[in-house]
Amino acid sequence: MLVHGEEPFNAEPPTCALAERLTTPLDAFYSRNHGPIPHIDTATWRLEVDGLVERPLRLSLEELRSRFPEREVIATLQCAGNRRAELIAIRDIPGEDPWRSGAISTASWVGVSLADVLAEAGLRPGAAHISFAAPDVAQQAEQAWQAEQAWQADLPRHFGGSIPVAKATAGEVLLAWAMNGHPLPAAHGAPLRVIVPGWIGARSVKWLERVTARADPSGNYFQAVAYRMLPPDADPSRCGPGSGIPLGPVALTCDILLPEHDSPVSPGPTEITGYALAGDGRGVARVDVSLDAGRTWTQAELDAPAGPWAWQHWRTTVVLSEGEADIVARAWDSAGTTQPESPATLWNPRGYANTSWGRLHLTCR
Amino acid sequence: MLVHGEEPFNAEPPTCALAERLTTPLDAFYSRNHGPIPHIDTATWRLEVDGLVERPLRLSLEELRSRFPEREVIATLQCAGNRRAELIAIRDIPGEDPWRSGAISTASWVGVSLADVLAEAGLRPGAAHISFAAPDVAQQAEQAWQAEQAWQADLPRHFGGSIPVAKATAGEVLLAWAMNGHPLPAAHGAPLRVIVPGWIGARSVKWLERVTARADPSGNYFQAVAYRMLPPDADPSRCGPGSGIPLGPVALTCDILLPEHDSPVSPGPTEITGYALAGDGRGVARVDVSLDAGRTWTQAELDAPAGPWAWQHWRTTVVLSEGEADIVARAWDSAGTTQPESPATLWNPRGYANTSWGRLHLTCR
Repeated sequence: MLVHGEEPFNAEPPTCALAERLTTPLDAFYSRNHGPIPHIDTATWRLEVDGLVERPLRLSLEELRSRFPEREVIATLQCAGNRRAELIAIRDIPGEDPWRSGAISTASWVGVSLADVLAEAGLRPGAAHISFAAPDVAQQAEQAWQAEQAWQADLPRHFGGSIPVAKATAGEVLLAWAMNGHPLPAAHGAPLRVIVPGWIGARSVKWLERVTARADPSGNYFQAVAYRMLPPDADPSRCGPGSGIPLGPVALTCDILLPEHDSPVSPGPTEITGYALAGDGRGVARVDVSLDAGRTWTQAELDAPAGPWAWQHWRTTVVLSEGEADIVARAWDSAGTTQPESPATLWNPRGYANTSWGRLHLTCR
Repeated sequence: MLVHGEEPFNAEPPTCALAERLTTPLDAFYSRNHGPIPHIDTATWRLEVDGLVERPLRLSLEELRSRFPEREVIATLQCAGNRRAELIAIRDIPGEDPWRSGAISTASWVGVSLADVLAEAGLRPGAAHISFAAPDVAQQAEQAWQAEQAWQADLPRHFGGSIPVAKATAGEVLLAWAMNGHPLPAAHGAPLRVIVPGWIGARSVKWLERVTARADPSGNYFQAVAYRMLPPDADPSRCGPGSGIPLGPVALTCDILLPEHDSPVSPGPTEITGYALAGDGRGVARVDVSLDAGRTWTQAELDAPAGPWAWQHWRTTVVLSEGEADIVARAWDSAGTTQPESPATLWNPRGYANTSWGRLHLTCR
């Protein structure tokens, strides 16, 4: 793993670990944290469901398991900062980790549907958003708190966020206790985490303690201030809550996983492997690969989707000549949309959502 | 109007006519036809609803009006070939009209919800698509018919198409008899047309005669062969039914409407006006304008949306110096997605879905 920080622990796997199979092994699944990993006693832990509900709930893990049907969803999670390194190469982004191509992973998640839990609690009129609260304290939000700026004083220091009721009740959002057939590890949110398929990883809140139905989106620092797409010329330190575009559904993207960047290859046929992932509610329709910066393209062989929320691997064989090779890949979704060409045009002050063409440089000799 | 052809009648307004107001006047609304305009006797006309339904219906216009609640939707329609001229400038596209920036218009549509009509008919198990049939005979499909190629022999020569049941029953799809407060003109589909908000104009079938619930998508020429996004290196004459990506939901786009292309302007402040339109189910979050090919951007003032299916106008004032000016604009949607930069990377053999940055060239003196 490439470790960006030990505390909070932030690390990504090499792309070769993402190429081997549809689901990512537990020890290769990327870790994105904003505070120390809390270790929770499952015996005393309870999930609170409150806010604009008819019947507030307080549930042990055993009660969650026994009172609601078990669901499994294969879902890809992606950090909004995945491939930030390519943006930093354009222009520096102080204070944010230079994630390469590995802040994305896929698992089979097992738990209960948030829709079922909310149906049991009964949403009251006016419930438009469902927020998630966790106990991990984030230094980043703490600093904002201590700065005592008026707009920051009310922001909780714990990690959290919310999603609209329409997504929360659509069925695919899980409260999950297992991952790839194993109990959820502490690092990935034990005893219970949210999985919001098709949305940025930040909404899949780990170490979940509280689910709250509310009229407005969460005011949590990581929703109201961070994880928002600012205009390129904005100064993030002067952007209060509500600035920019709140990131939610992920955008169409694809990337190259194998060979690894700058790895030595020999002239002749070389297999190129990657993934593609469409946005919330769409499918990947085609993946193109180009050896000449997009002047001509060939179509990659695309795996059948394992479900609507999982990436699809693809592969193609290119014939390389001796010298430097720059390979690009782009995906098209079922609406006929494709990705922007260049990270330069996507640069934004916090370095989110780099969904430009996947790029690979190789030296062939 | 810029007339691309008299029979079938294809014409687009100058962009200034699209900038004046949210809804486009009837005489400026773009016309896209594949055959002669049929003139239908409303007194004898009936709408058939058949296929995988419990209760087939046969309805006069008066019965449609009296048996179902009237609905109004403000929706932008866009031809999949809008801005094809920019693609043709990259590489020729024989046999397709060089639509400029005017194959897009917005109206207030009044009719009944297709969902209500389908509920009355009762969808049977297995109904997955709803197809629309019209009487206009398309020369383009006729030629395919006469070519007697095996794969073309079964394709109807009349215009038609289908949408998935999920879209057909979502509520916003109308069977419309009025447009901007006027009865639907013959040129726009009288007595009844489909309006599929957020989807390519080709699915908003005019002169509607038959609505059919079916297991598979329509095999009509204009769905099975045309209006599909082929890979750049494909030869359309050799692509049978089912080739390429079937276009449906429109992709995020924006364009500049005023000043008009190549119009003379004076140095100093100049107001730039345009529109932005997000894809099916998404909203426009921001519009950026650049005078330096995307190196720096400023944010335009964006009108509040008139509804989820209508474009949003935007405007900004730029200060121009003497000489040539190239202005570009791009929109961001609520998922943090933006448009591809260049039409060159979007070129495809039938010239569809050019959703690259809006571009305007001016001479300032």
